[in-house]
Amino acid sequence: MATLCRPAIAVPEHIITREETLELARTLHANHPQLELALRLIGNTGVQTRHLVQPIETTLQHPGFTTRNNIYEAEAKARVPAVIDRALEHAELTVRDIDMIVYVSCTGFMMPSMTAWLINTMGFRNETRQLPIAQLGCAAGGAAINRAHDFCNAYPGSNVLIVACEFCSLLYQPTDLAVGNLLSNGLFGDAIACAVVRGEGGTGVQLEANGSHLVPDTEEWISYAVKDTGFHFLLDKRVPGTMAMLAPAMRDMAEPHDWDVSDLDFYIVHAGGPRILDDLGKYLELEQNMFRYSRQTLVERGNIASAVVFDALERLFQDGGAAHSARGVIAGFGPGITAEIALGTWSGQVNGSSNGHKKASAGRNSSVTLPA
Amino acid sequence: MATLCRPAIAVPEHIITREETLELARTLHANHPQLELALRLIGNTGVQTRHLVQPIETTLQHPGFTTRNNIYEAEAKARVPAVIDRALEHAELTVRDIDMIVYVSCTGFMMPSMTAWLINTMGFRNETRQLPIAQLGCAAGGAAINRAHDFCNAYPGSNVLIVACEFCSLLYQPTDLAVGNLLSNGLFGDAIACAVVRGEGGTGVQLEANGSHLVPDTEEWISYAVKDTGFHFLLDKRVPGTMAMLAPAMRDMAEPHDWDVSDLDFYIVHAGGPRILDDLGKYLELEQNMFRYSRQTLVERGNIASAVVFDALERLFQDGGAAHSARGVIAGFGPGITAEIALGTWSGQVNGSSNGHKKASAGRNSSVTLPA
Repeated sequence: MATLCRPAIAVPEHIITREETLELARTLHANHPQLELALRLIGNTGVQTRHLVQPIETTLQHPGFTTRNNIYEAEAKARVPAVIDRALEHAELTVRDIDMIVYVSCTGFMMPSMTAWLINTMGFRNETRQLPIAQLGCAAGGAAINRAHDFCNAYPGSNVLIVACEFCSLLYQPTDLAVGNLLSNGLFGDAIACAVVRGEGGTGVQLEANGSHLVPDTEEWISYAVKDTGFHFLLDKRVPGTMAMLAPAMRDMAEPHDWDVSDLDFYIVHAGGPRILDDLGKYLELEQNMFRYSRQTLVERGNIASAVVFDALERLFQDGGAAHSARGVIAGFGPGITAEIALGTWSGQVNGSSNGHKKASAGRNSSVTLPA
Repeated sequence: MATLCRPAIAVPEHIITREETLELARTLHANHPQLELALRLIGNTGVQTRHLVQPIETTLQHPGFTTRNNIYEAEAKARVPAVIDRALEHAELTVRDIDMIVYVSCTGFMMPSMTAWLINTMGFRNETRQLPIAQLGCAAGGAAINRAHDFCNAYPGSNVLIVACEFCSLLYQPTDLAVGNLLSNGLFGDAIACAVVRGEGGTGVQLEANGSHLVPDTEEWISYAVKDTGFHFLLDKRVPGTMAMLAPAMRDMAEPHDWDVSDLDFYIVHAGGPRILDDLGKYLELEQNMFRYSRQTLVERGNIASAVVFDALERLFQDGGAAHSARGVIAGFGPGITAEIALGTWSGQVNGSSNGHKKASAGRNSSVTLPA
């Protein structure tokens, strides 16, 4: 059984607050006919702070796609390895134990992908499978977990490293002035998340089943226009209502496994915006408190794309994890509109192998204290 | 056991010959100090014809990355579905039987990826997994086969559709004048290849094992510079010598499975250029005739990136396939430098289930006649 171990998260050092974001919007778009609507939407996100790879003054300049993508590469190379090291420590594994690297990122493009550089630089085995995914956007966090799970199902005992590297601030487009863009400019943040899916042993979410769902005919609701100036993010105003379709999809995915998605112990879902969490509560008939980890991620870091689910999961670990065998769901939502859904049970054995795992152990550097 | 069924291939209607390519190079680069070297290198590729999605006059214009990528999207949407239909017919499956779509392409970028459009347009189930891969270049054909194989290992009986859509001509950069670029301009062609990996039954290459290998510290040998003008392909002059490292990697991958990679019945390898095939013959001590399908692809279509291995495999099918249980290797080579290697045996049962497959059958529209 594959177990998603404790993630490691890193956010950059440059911080922008809610107040600074609103003030910037007022200054930059003083004459925008829908400024008040944009300010209200940004305020409603609940985002209090976001972290950026560059100071805000630099972030607001568009130096061209060429330079932007070079910045992405330099920042990724400077920041990712330390986060991988911590994720490996959490899983009690080394680079030599990893059989596949799933690298997800929709905010920069490299070929060869970062996977090649990581293998060369960090000492992963040259036989490590490389799975770079650039086109699943915010759903890629869930997709990475699910493809890692599939790989461990195919090759029991193998280990997969997931890296989600999202520098959303490098997609700022000063000439995009639709309300959806103004909102995005106040919503997205930067972060790196890494986590290991262990094929055997490990403490965390034992992955039981996974599924994907594409909401019909919503391709244009979340998309990139690919231009000379780079990727232009397009956000349709219908997106916040997506849970009307995705909550039933989550229910349908869980049912064949005899799980009631309205009666689980933990929920780690993509916090694209506040309404996603509000609506999930409504449609799944759940208290908002059940989404507290995702909400905290949104409030403290903004929408950090594919990294959200890992940041929220890390908060569950910080909080002491769940009871052994507690049931939960992890779901990433993104362009397509696509949901990538994983069902898992908390595997919390400490210093033991109570359920037959060969190498069961607690995370060495983990502050998690688990219920017996 | 997963079986890679007969691929379907499509090449665009605009054709450029070897002579036209050489004449163009002479005209466009009349004063280039290394023109003679470039002409010799282009001549040495052995490429006789290539197919392009646009007439050569249009291909030579760079209308900007915005327009280029729009052309990619329009051409992919216009051309891919019919090729998928044929691949499904070869596998005797319908869109409803497909559990995952692996879409590989390094010559255009879309988010959502083409997978979403295909699901919406062609009637695939909304639960179909989407695996778009853009960053593995020419190795992505092998990677697609291997990830499809993994998925069928994880979920026996499931079926994966592979789509390789490569419009290399949309990456023509008129201002890139290094000899490597002039060579690339005369080497790459456009093509679409689709193939189904059937979890049960099917005629073709039964996938036995797969592996990946990254040649250390060769990240810069094949790469993209991502610029305002799009993807700029960079080809190092050391690339043709790569088989010195990859032939041993193929041997090492096969050995634990007790296969001698120098003693197989068929070889379907990426024909990036002629030296790859020459050197593989040398290092694996094989007659050049063993690489005839890959060579034919190179000669008739040029380097069609991730689609090469499928085009070469289709030629093996056209040629009557291999003997039942014949052993072979499929290998994609690309940036990293990465090799994606698959070992397989020919599964040629016709109208029967001689080896225990539940739904074994021959391709309905296949012209293959197989040895009993």
